[in-house]
Amino acid sequence: MIGIFDSGVGGMTVARAIEKELPHCRLVYFGDLARTPYGSKSAETIRKYAVENSEFLLKKGARLIIVACNSAASVASDLLRDKFPVPVFEVITPAIRQVWQTSKIGRIGIIGTRATITSRIYEEKIKEQRKDFQVFSQPCPLLVPLVEEGWLNKRETKMIIRRYLHPLKLKNIDTLVLGCTHYPLLKKLIQPRMGRRVRVIDSSRALAGELAVFLEKNPELAKSLSSAGENEYYVSDITEAARATAERIFGRRINLSLP
Amino acid sequence: MIGIFDSGVGGMTVARAIEKELPHCRLVYFGDLARTPYGSKSAETIRKYAVENSEFLLKKGARLIIVACNSAASVASDLLRDKFPVPVFEVITPAIRQVWQTSKIGRIGIIGTRATITSRIYEEKIKEQRKDFQVFSQPCPLLVPLVEEGWLNKRETKMIIRRYLHPLKLKNIDTLVLGCTHYPLLKKLIQPRMGRRVRVIDSSRALAGELAVFLEKNPELAKSLSSAGENEYYVSDITEAARATAERIFGRRINLSLP
Repeated sequence: MIGIFDSGVGGMTVARAIEKELPHCRLVYFGDLARTPYGSKSAETIRKYAVENSEFLLKKGARLIIVACNSAASVASDLLRDKFPVPVFEVITPAIRQVWQTSKIGRIGIIGTRATITSRIYEEKIKEQRKDFQVFSQPCPLLVPLVEEGWLNKRETKMIIRRYLHPLKLKNIDTLVLGCTHYPLLKKLIQPRMGRRVRVIDSSRALAGELAVFLEKNPELAKSLSSAGENEYYVSDITEAARATAERIFGRRINLSLP
Repeated sequence: MIGIFDSGVGGMTVARAIEKELPHCRLVYFGDLARTPYGSKSAETIRKYAVENSEFLLKKGARLIIVACNSAASVASDLLRDKFPVPVFEVITPAIRQVWQTSKIGRIGIIGTRATITSRIYEEKIKEQRKDFQVFSQPCPLLVPLVEEGWLNKRETKMIIRRYLHPLKLKNIDTLVLGCTHYPLLKKLIQPRMGRRVRVIDSSRALAGELAVFLEKNPELAKSLSSAGENEYYVSDITEAARATAERIFGRRINLSLP
């Protein structure tokens, strides 16, 4: 199975993208709702949680781990690669590769939670190969609560998005990375706000695409990831709001279980 | 010492109110930032956390415990009273008593997190003594993130408050309870929105007032709560945003320590 973890249900946008891209693979998902959100917590705390979540997924039969939480990806991916003997994917690197491939003028915007932006991970990774690129970052801490409230089309949400994106518009970026798995649900508000000329990169879809290529090259592993049976969705706490967000992401009812 | 716990730093509005009302008492505070917020979590999870937090405060020398988190107060107070041999105060009951004393027409509004509102604790407690009172509840889950962002005077915050309070205005309430310890920081926006005729009850101040009366009647206990030394502020995770909110509440820098 493919193991995916996130601080909550936002990472289900990654599960959804993988489901579309690799319908034969079986997924086991863990959303750490009892300790959500990670975005406002310290790197040390997030690392501890990431290890615990990975151990749970491995115990459930995962042969590959996906860190579907940007905050955890930015501070814990290397630690997980050192610690566990399975491939570890995360939501940041595939988005970075798309940035390198598609930006024409090298002016890049990044939006994410405060933890992701403070870590400067996107900026550092982009500059690893393209020192000439200029990266402009904007923390958007209110967007996750707005998505979790289901306020996807409210005037206040549009105004808050405008306030957050305004400084990036002034920088004349040509590429904007959605550096949080909740944000694809707001893409319909974000894209028009930035204008047609700005390419908006959805890290969930970038990851699913890259995973498909990797599995084509590793047929043995690919075989071990596909098996009969339903995908499993675990959360460390069950709430009505989480059920509603999960349903919003998949467009169907999702059965959430406690570990 | 007086022990106070909250899911985060919001409960510091209670610590601040007690500091003003009872300047001789010494406080030990615990804010569970590593697992914040409680408001979106299940009752069972919140109860487990409340017990752990109380055990920590008792170990630090608390002789009285204050549950400064409405979500925990609504689902865990009775459990804590059964389990621990010290007086347990919480932010709900004192506010309820003020409702009984001050409402003229018995039409009461309650605002709080989703967990507090779903628990119906305010409604049930108000009706224990006044079955004739009508209670109208409104969950306001975006207000905590707005306070933690420091958006205390932004247009979006005003609009969101207007949207949340609108249904309560239509009900012609004469009393509004701020059922979350973060909300006193928004009182300056909430009071004018409701109008002069609506009494806004701040549960932090109601609790501090009631505690002062209780300690007057229990001088032995009162003596054991006052001692030399600084108040202690522990949090299970330290972030810049938490420091900033703490400073906003106290109007001065607060030294946060890990347990």
